[in-house]
Amino acid sequence: MKLYRLKTLTSFDGLEMCEEEAPTAGAHEVSIRIRATSLNYRDIAIARNQYGVGQIQPGIIPLSDGAGDIIAVGHQVRGFAVGDRVAGIFRQNWQGGPMPLRAVPADLGGNRDGVLAQQVVLYEEGIVKLPAHLSYEEGATLPCAAVTAWRALHDGTPLLPGQTILILGSGGVSVFALQMAKRLGANVIATTSSEEKAAKLRALGADTVINYAAHAEWQHEVLAATGGIGVDRVIETGGPGTLERSLQATAMHGRVVVIGVLAGPGTINPAPILQKRLTLTGISTGSRDMFEQMNRALEQWALHPIIDTVFPFEEAHAAYDYLLSGKHLGKVVISGPA
Amino acid sequence: MKLYRLKTLTSFDGLEMCEEEAPTAGAHEVSIRIRATSLNYRDIAIARNQYGVGQIQPGIIPLSDGAGDIIAVGHQVRGFAVGDRVAGIFRQNWQGGPMPLRAVPADLGGNRDGVLAQQVVLYEEGIVKLPAHLSYEEGATLPCAAVTAWRALHDGTPLLPGQTILILGSGGVSVFALQMAKRLGANVIATTSSEEKAAKLRALGADTVINYAAHAEWQHEVLAATGGIGVDRVIETGGPGTLERSLQATAMHGRVVVIGVLAGPGTINPAPILQKRLTLTGISTGSRDMFEQMNRALEQWALHPIIDTVFPFEEAHAAYDYLLSGKHLGKVVISGPA
Amino acid sequence: MKLYRLKTLTSFDGLEMCEEEAPTAGAHEVSIRIRATSLNYRDIAIARNQYGVGQIQPGIIPLSDGAGDIIAVGHQVRGFAVGDRVAGIFRQNWQGGPMPLRAVPADLGGNRDGVLAQQVVLYEEGIVKLPAHLSYEEGATLPCAAVTAWRALHDGTPLLPGQTILILGSGGVSVFALQMAKRLGANVIATTSSEEKAAKLRALGADTVINYAAHAEWQHEVLAATGGIGVDRVIETGGPGTLERSLQATAMHGRVVVIGVLAGPGTINPAPILQKRLTLTGISTGSRDMFEQMNRALEQWALHPIIDTVFPFEEAHAAYDYLLSGKHLGKVVISGPA
Amino acid sequence: MKLYRLKTLTSFDGLEMCEEEAPTAGAHEVSIRIRATSLNYRDIAIARNQYGVGQIQPGIIPLSDGAGDIIAVGHQVRGFAVGDRVAGIFRQNWQGGPMPLRAVPADLGGNRDGVLAQQVVLYEEGIVKLPAHLSYEEGATLPCAAVTAWRALHDGTPLLPGQTILILGSGGVSVFALQMAKRLGANVIATTSSEEKAAKLRALGADTVINYAAHAEWQHEVLAATGGIGVDRVIETGGPGTLERSLQATAMHGRVVVIGVLAGPGTINPAPILQKRLTLTGISTGSRDMFEQMNRALEQWALHPIIDTVFPFEEAHAAYDYLLSGKHLGKVVISGPA
Repeated sequence: MKLYRLKTLTSFDGLEMCEEEAPTAGAHEVSIRIRATSLNYRDIAIARNQYGVGQIQPGIIPLSDGAGDIIAVGHQVRGFAVGDRVAGIFRQNWQGGPMPLRAVPADLGGNRDGVLAQQVVLYEEGIVKLPAHLSYEEGATLPCAAVTAWRALHDGTPLLPGQTILILGSGGVSVFALQMAKRLGANVIATTSSEEKAAKLRALGADTVINYAAHAEWQHEVLAATGGIGVDRVIETGGPGTLERSLQATAMHGRVVVIGVLAGPGTINPAPILQKRLTLTGISTGSRDMFEQMNRALEQWALHPIIDTVFPFEEAHAAYDYLLSGKHLGKVVISGPA
Repeated sequence: MKLYRLKTLTSFDGLEMCEEEAPTAGAHEVSIRIRATSLNYRDIAIARNQYGVGQIQPGIIPLSDGAGDIIAVGHQVRGFAVGDRVAGIFRQNWQGGPMPLRAVPADLGGNRDGVLAQQVVLYEEGIVKLPAHLSYEEGATLPCAAVTAWRALHDGTPLLPGQTILILGSGGVSVFALQMAKRLGANVIATTSSEEKAAKLRALGADTVINYAAHAEWQHEVLAATGGIGVDRVIETGGPGTLERSLQATAMHGRVVVIGVLAGPGTINPAPILQKRLTLTGISTGSRDMFEQMNRALEQWALHPIIDTVFPFEEAHAAYDYLLSGKHLGKVVISGPA
Repeated sequence: MKLYRLKTLTSFDGLEMCEEEAPTAGAHEVSIRIRATSLNYRDIAIARNQYGVGQIQPGIIPLSDGAGDIIAVGHQVRGFAVGDRVAGIFRQNWQGGPMPLRAVPADLGGNRDGVLAQQVVLYEEGIVKLPAHLSYEEGATLPCAAVTAWRALHDGTPLLPGQTILILGSGGVSVFALQMAKRLGANVIATTSSEEKAAKLRALGADTVINYAAHAEWQHEVLAATGGIGVDRVIETGGPGTLERSLQATAMHGRVVVIGVLAGPGTINPAPILQKRLTLTGISTGSRDMFEQMNRALEQWALHPIIDTVFPFEEAHAAYDYLLSGKHLGKVVISGPA
Repeated sequence: MKLYRLKTLTSFDGLEMCEEEAPTAGAHEVSIRIRATSLNYRDIAIARNQYGVGQIQPGIIPLSDGAGDIIAVGHQVRGFAVGDRVAGIFRQNWQGGPMPLRAVPADLGGNRDGVLAQQVVLYEEGIVKLPAHLSYEEGATLPCAAVTAWRALHDGTPLLPGQTILILGSGGVSVFALQMAKRLGANVIATTSSEEKAAKLRALGADTVINYAAHAEWQHEVLAATGGIGVDRVIETGGPGTLERSLQATAMHGRVVVIGVLAGPGTINPAPILQKRLTLTGISTGSRDMFEQMNRALEQWALHPIIDTVFPFEEAHAAYDYLLSGKHLGKVVISGPA
C-alpha cells in the first residue's frame, strides 16, 4: 500500500511517499481504507519539529484526521462491520470524561502512526462512525478541528442561545465554531484581516466582522458591538498576541477558551481575570464521546464542513505548503490514493 | 445606637463613631443586634478609596462581616424569629447559582450600609443562621473570607480527597482554605515568609510549608514537593506578583482560583495555560446557598475559625491599623458595643 | 384599582372582583401596572383547594403569571425605571442556583398575593424585563410554563442538538418545550389524543406525533419511532398514569423530567430505572436566572408563545372554565383592566 | 495455569477448576499474576443465569474483581512495568465520562473472561495501579463494589460535608459507602436486620442504625432521626422492596442513587418524586477515572476495605455458598493459586 512517512523532522522535505505491506487487524482492531485526510496547523509544526519535541519520532506516518471505510474487522470486534464509514479519533486513548492524565497519550500522527496512508489499523475504541450526510472528504475534516470547536462551545458551561461569542480569525477551529455557534443560537463576532475573508465569514453567518488590520485595538470594536458589555465567550486561537485583548473584550463572568498548538513568547496583563471574574480554560481536542455527540448534531443540522481545497494523495507536500500560506478559509484536504 | 460611618474615603481617619436612632424592620426585614464584626482587607481598601472607586459613597457604615441576634422581625417574615443567631451575607442580592449579572450588586459595607453598628436591619433573604457551635466572634468571621474559601474549594470541579492544593500566605481566605482543605482530605502546601507563621500553619495541618522569603523561586519547591507533577489546585490570593509562579506550580489540567481585591500592575506569561490545559477562574465571595452549605460542614467538622485578636467596639481604628500591619494570622474581630 | 381575590377556596365561585386602593412601593420595590396575565393548571387547583392545602389562605389575589409596565420605583431601586416592561417571577425568593430549601417559599398567587389585579407591588429582585419582541399578552405566558419548559431542557444534563425528546400532550409546558426543543436541534416526539391537536403540534415542528387514544400502549410507538432505542429525554407532565410508559420509552441512560402539580394515585414498576440506568428528576418552575437566560434565547430565536384565547379582565371566570375544559392548545390569557 | 470456568450457567456446580496454557500479552496488553479475587452478588446471579441472560456465554472465566502483579508487558505498553501492583477495571471499555452507549460493553467475568485464574491478560487501558497501602486481598475488593460506592457519593451532585445519607443493609457497596461517607463528613444512617451487624456498622462509624426487622416501617425512624426532614441522599441497594420507603425517607430535593443487579417484581408509588422534587438515578459500577480518583482518596484516608473471609483458590465454591448465605459483613475474597 502507499503511505507517507516523516523521515526527518525538519521541514516538509522529510515527508516521503513509500510503499509498504498493509497492516492486519488484531482481535479488537479494524482495518480502514483511508479515502481522505485533512491537515491541521499541528501537522506543520510536527513536520518542522516544533511540536511535542522529543516525544515524536522521525519515521512516523503523519496526520491525525482521516476518514474511510472498514475493510476488515478482528474476530472480537462487535460494534463495527466491514463497509462502515468511519473516522479515527485524535487521541486514541481518550474515550470520555476529562482528558485522562495517563503518562503517555496516544495521538494519531504524533506519538502514534497517523492516517496519511492507503490503509490503517485502529483499535475498535479509537474510531467513530461518520455522519450519514457527509462525504469522506467532509468526514476527514472532523477529528481535530471540529471536535475542538464542539468542545469549546460545550465544555464547562455550555453556550446558551442568545449569548454572544467572539471567534478569532478563519482557521479550522474558528470556522467550525462559527458554523456551530450560529446553529446553537449565538450572536457571533468574528475577526479577520482581509475583506475577502470577512465576506466569507458573513456568508457563514457571522453577525459582526471586525477587520483587525484596520483596527489594531479591535477589543474596542467588540465592546462597541456589545453595547459596552463584552462577549460571553471567546474561542481564543490567537495565542499570547491576542489573549490580552480577548480578556478586555469579555463580559463580566465570561469564559475564554484558550486553544492552540504553539505558545509563542509574550506576556499579558491578567487584571481582567480578577476584575471581571473571568474563567480561562486551555483545551486541546476532545474525547470520542464528544465526537459522537457532535456527529449527532451535525446530522440534525445537516451541517457541511467548509473545505477550501482538495489535493490528490501524490501532492501532499503542496497541501502542507498551501496550509502554511494562510490563504485558505476552511479545511485543506488530501484525497486517499486512487 | 452607636455606629461608625466612613465620613470621608481617604484614610482610616474618615472612620467616625456616631450616635443615631436605630432603624426599624419593614415587612420582610429583621432587626439584628450586632455582637461582633470582622475585618477584611477590602475594608481597608474601601476606607482608602482604593476599591469600587466611584461606586462607594462617603458616609456609609463600613464592614460586610457581622453576627448577632435578631431582636425584631417584620410581620411577613416567616423563616426567622426573635432570638435567632444570624450573620448577614456579603452580597445581599446573591442567593444562589452563579453570581447574578444585575447592574447593581448590594454589598454590605460597600454600596449598601454595612454592619459596624449596634443594630442593623437586613432583608430576610440576606441573612443565615450561625452554626450552633460558634460564638458571635467566630460567626462574625465567616461572611467574606470563609465563604470565599469554601467556594474556592467547591466551585466548578470540587476538590477531591487525595488531591494536592497550594495556599498562598496566611490571610483570612488562606487560613480558612487550609482548615477546610485538610478536612476535605487534601494534601496542603502553604507558603509564608516567616518561620513563626510557618509553625502556626503546620499546627493547622499544612503538610508542607515553603518560606518564600528563603525561596524566591518557590514554584520549584512546590514542584519538588509533588514529585515534579505540580498541584491540582491553587488558591491564588497573591495577585499578579505570584500568579505566574502559581501557573508554573500547577499540574496538567489543574485549576487556579484567582481571588483578590486589588489587581496590581504586572504582567504574566500565560503559556502554561495552553501547555498544561489549565483553568483559571476569578471569584469573589459566594452566595447565601454556599454560606448555608458551608455552615453545615463547619458544624459537622466542629471547625472553629482562627481569631487573632478581638478589639473593643470603641477601638475600631486600632483594628484597621492592626490588619494593615500584616502581623496577624487569622481574623481580626471587633466586638459589638456593650 | 380593580383586582380579584379568591374569597373561598372551593370552586371558581370564590373568585370575586373587587375594588381596593392601589399599593405603594417600598424602598426596594416597584409598582407595576398589569397589562395581561395567564392561567396555569395550578391556578385551577388552588381555586379548588387541591394545591398547597393549608398553606394557601382564602382571600389571596390569584395567578402567578403577569406582565406589565413599571409605574413607580422605590428610592433605593437601581436596576429598573418607570416604563420598563417586566414580568414577575413565579417564586419571588428564588433568584438562582438550586431551589433554596428555605422553610417558606414565596410563590405569587399561592402563599403570596398574585397578579390578577390592576396594579401590583413586587420586590426589585422578583421581576425580569420582558423580551423586546413580545407583547404584554405574550410576556404574561412566560413565568410558570415557559420557565419550567426551559429548565426541563437544560437542568442537569442539557439537551444536545441531535437528541430525541418525548413531550406528552399539549399543555402549556409541553407546547413551550416543543417550540424550544426544535430550536435547540432536537427530534421531537409528541403525544396527543385528537387529530386536530396533532395537526397543530406538527405545524409547530413535532417530528412525530402519536395519538394515544388510538395507541393505548403508545410507548411501543415511541420505541418504533426511535429504531427501538428510546428517547434521550422525556418531559413527563402526565403524572403516575403515564410515568411507567415513559420509563419504558426512554433510552439507556436517558433522563425523565417529572413535572406536575397533582400527584394522583397509582403505582409504577420502577425496574427500568435500574435496567437502563435512567435519571428521574422532579422539578417545578425555575429561578430568576433561568427566566433571564430564557428571555435572551427567546429574543435570539424570535420565538412567540402560542396563545389560544385572550379573555377580558371582567371574564376571569370564563378563562378558568375554558382552561379546565382542556380544549385549548397554548396559553389562556386574561387582559389587564382597561 | 490454574483457572475456573463456568461450564454451565445453572448453579455453582457449573464452576469447574481447569488447567490451561497461560495467555500471552499483545502489543498493548499486560500479563497479570492474580493474587486475590473477590465476589459480588452479580457473580452468583451470573452462575445461575439470572444476569445478562443470553449475553453471557457458558465457559467464561468468572469474576470481575481481581488484583495482582504484572509479569509481562507488550512492546507498546508505556504506562506500566513488570512488578506493578494492579487491578482490572470492571468495564474494560469505560475509561471516563458518562458510561459510553456502545452496543457491546466489555465486562470482566460477564461478556469477557474474568479474573478467577492464575494469570490474565488485559488491555493497558483496562487496569489501574493499586493504592500503596493495600494488600492484594484488599485491592481485589475494589473494582465493582468500592467504585460503585465512590460513584454513588460523587456522581451528579457530590455529597457535601454535613449532609445526611441513608445506607441500606451491609452488602459490599453499602459498607464501602459507609466508610467513605464518614470520611467525607456525612451523617450516616444505616439499616440492618441483626443486632450483631448493627454493632459492626456502628463500629464503622454509622451515626444511627435502624433495625428494619424490628421496624417494618423504618422510613419513619429515618424521618425521626433527621428531625422530620429526611436524608439528603440514599444509597438504594434494596430494589423495589425498599425503594418506596426510601423515597419517603428522603428530604426535599434529595437524591436517591439506585443500585442493584436484580430488579425484582413490585411497584412503587412515585408521588414523592413530584412532591419533593427528588432525583432518582440508576447506576452500575464506574469508569477507570473514578477508580483512579477513588484510589487517591483511599490512600489519603488510609482506608482499608472490610474483608469478612478469605477462601483458598481451591475452595471457590465455598466462597460462592458463603456469599449467598448472607452471613458476611464486608467482602468475601478468594486467594490466587499458590
